[in-house]
Amino acid sequence: MTQRTVFFVSDHSGVTAETLGHSLIAQFDALEFRKVTVPFVSTVDKAKRAARKINAQARKQGAPPIVFSTLVKEDVRDTVREIVGRADALFLDFFDSFLGPLEKELGHTSQHAMGVSHGIQDFREYDRRIEAMNFALAHDDGSNQDGYDEADVVLVGVSRSGKTPTCLYLALHYGVFAANYPLTGSDLERRRIPVALARHRDKIYGLTIEPQRLGELRSARGIGRRYASPRQVSFEVRQAQGLFDRLDIPFVDATRCSIEELASRILDATRLERRTVS
Amino acid sequence: MTQRTVFFVSDHSGVTAETLGHSLIAQFDALEFRKVTVPFVSTVDKAKRAARKINAQARKQGAPPIVFSTLVKEDVRDTVREIVGRADALFLDFFDSFLGPLEKELGHTSQHAMGVSHGIQDFREYDRRIEAMNFALAHDDGSNQDGYDEADVVLVGVSRSGKTPTCLYLALHYGVFAANYPLTGSDLERRRIPVALARHRDKIYGLTIEPQRLGELRSARGIGRRYASPRQVSFEVRQAQGLFDRLDIPFVDATRCSIEELASRILDATRLERRTVS
Repeated sequence: MTQRTVFFVSDHSGVTAETLGHSLIAQFDALEFRKVTVPFVSTVDKAKRAARKINAQARKQGAPPIVFSTLVKEDVRDTVREIVGRADALFLDFFDSFLGPLEKELGHTSQHAMGVSHGIQDFREYDRRIEAMNFALAHDDGSNQDGYDEADVVLVGVSRSGKTPTCLYLALHYGVFAANYPLTGSDLERRRIPVALARHRDKIYGLTIEPQRLGELRSARGIGRRYASPRQVSFEVRQAQGLFDRLDIPFVDATRCSIEELASRILDATRLERRTVS
Repeated sequence: MTQRTVFFVSDHSGVTAETLGHSLIAQFDALEFRKVTVPFVSTVDKAKRAARKINAQARKQGAPPIVFSTLVKEDVRDTVREIVGRADALFLDFFDSFLGPLEKELGHTSQHAMGVSHGIQDFREYDRRIEAMNFALAHDDGSNQDGYDEADVVLVGVSRSGKTPTCLYLALHYGVFAANYPLTGSDLERRRIPVALARHRDKIYGLTIEPQRLGELRSARGIGRRYASPRQVSFEVRQAQGLFDRLDIPFVDATRCSIEELASRILDATRLERRTVS
């Protein structure tokens, strides 16, 4: 079977085109795709060059290209469409399909402005994401517990249960102020949390994880055999679960959840506002 | 003018629906939208409940809802479409519009499987993102310079030019191993970089920024007046630029660039592989 090349063409960063294209090709598990992002195609000249390159690569591969595009400007879009059409491309443009019905429904013409979705439109909103990231870094792994007043949410869980990546994702993607506190040592043994944290019980959200997966994650880190031993991970997970139950802390199982899913579940459960969407 | 409510409905985390919907409504700058994410609509029963809630909210607001959805299962999608249709919704589903042409082009039926784009499909690929994030954290702000062997890219720039968020985004979104090194003190005065860094010159990428914006970013942090003074920021930016020029280091201006744009430009310029796309 010929491997097909998929191109994500964008007049800007390419994030939207990649997101759209990936979610579609992920539905064809049996096939393999080569993926090429072609960002910053912002003028007709650049469109000509990009489209010719796409055709050249497709010719080399001996199969028509598949092109997912998010090209807002009609002249740029039409140029790419016309040129890749000569190589029998499947050309799917996102704005092409959806802006029309949306304009009609809203009774407004759209701006056809480039880079509005992943550019800096509003410095204040953008700075909020950066502030949220700084907050997550400063309040990672139990640091600066006196700053929990400012937190939107405080994730708690055993080491390697996914707290840090989830906090950083919540910050970078949604502008949410997320701190995290690791459950270790005497907290686990006594199923207690420190007073500084307990004062913010309404902000606490737990992460749990299956012992086997936790053991794998810890082994990969290679810090001490005991840390990753079946006995130790089982003990920690059990104690953490007991603590969540005793204090009635809501929690989510991170075993088969990606960062995006964890973030989404936590936002959904806590009803926190998604302040920004990158 | 009636404010319209936009719903992002998904059978999973909602990240794809949010990204796509946002990039569309961002084209209507003159209008204001209320945004509601409705994730994890994975069964017909949940679809009924979600759709009725959408209709109730729309009724309260007195305007038909706008629904962006990424519902892979046809029965779930049809249920939502049918029910919100009673409230005269504009219903736009991404799979609906694009899976058909894609199936035809590829000569394959798609799986219609839920959560394949932001779930954990492949633990190894997923773990790579987490490893990349751990790498970015461990090699932030000049730490652990002996680890640059493993880095894909090392960002250099003055304090607050955007190095840390860009590194974390490269890691979380693209699985790229990104370190960063801050230009300060004697490095800036002498326009030099340390030997440990200079050994990896082919991995270095610079960030520059306009002095005024840098001053604003630093003022917001509130650490010392000198740090944010026009004189100091101008000096630092000039010296950093001189260093980039002298050592022929490629760089990008971060002043009006979002994290996504910075990441995309750096990947494009360095030809680094986008290993994962979240």
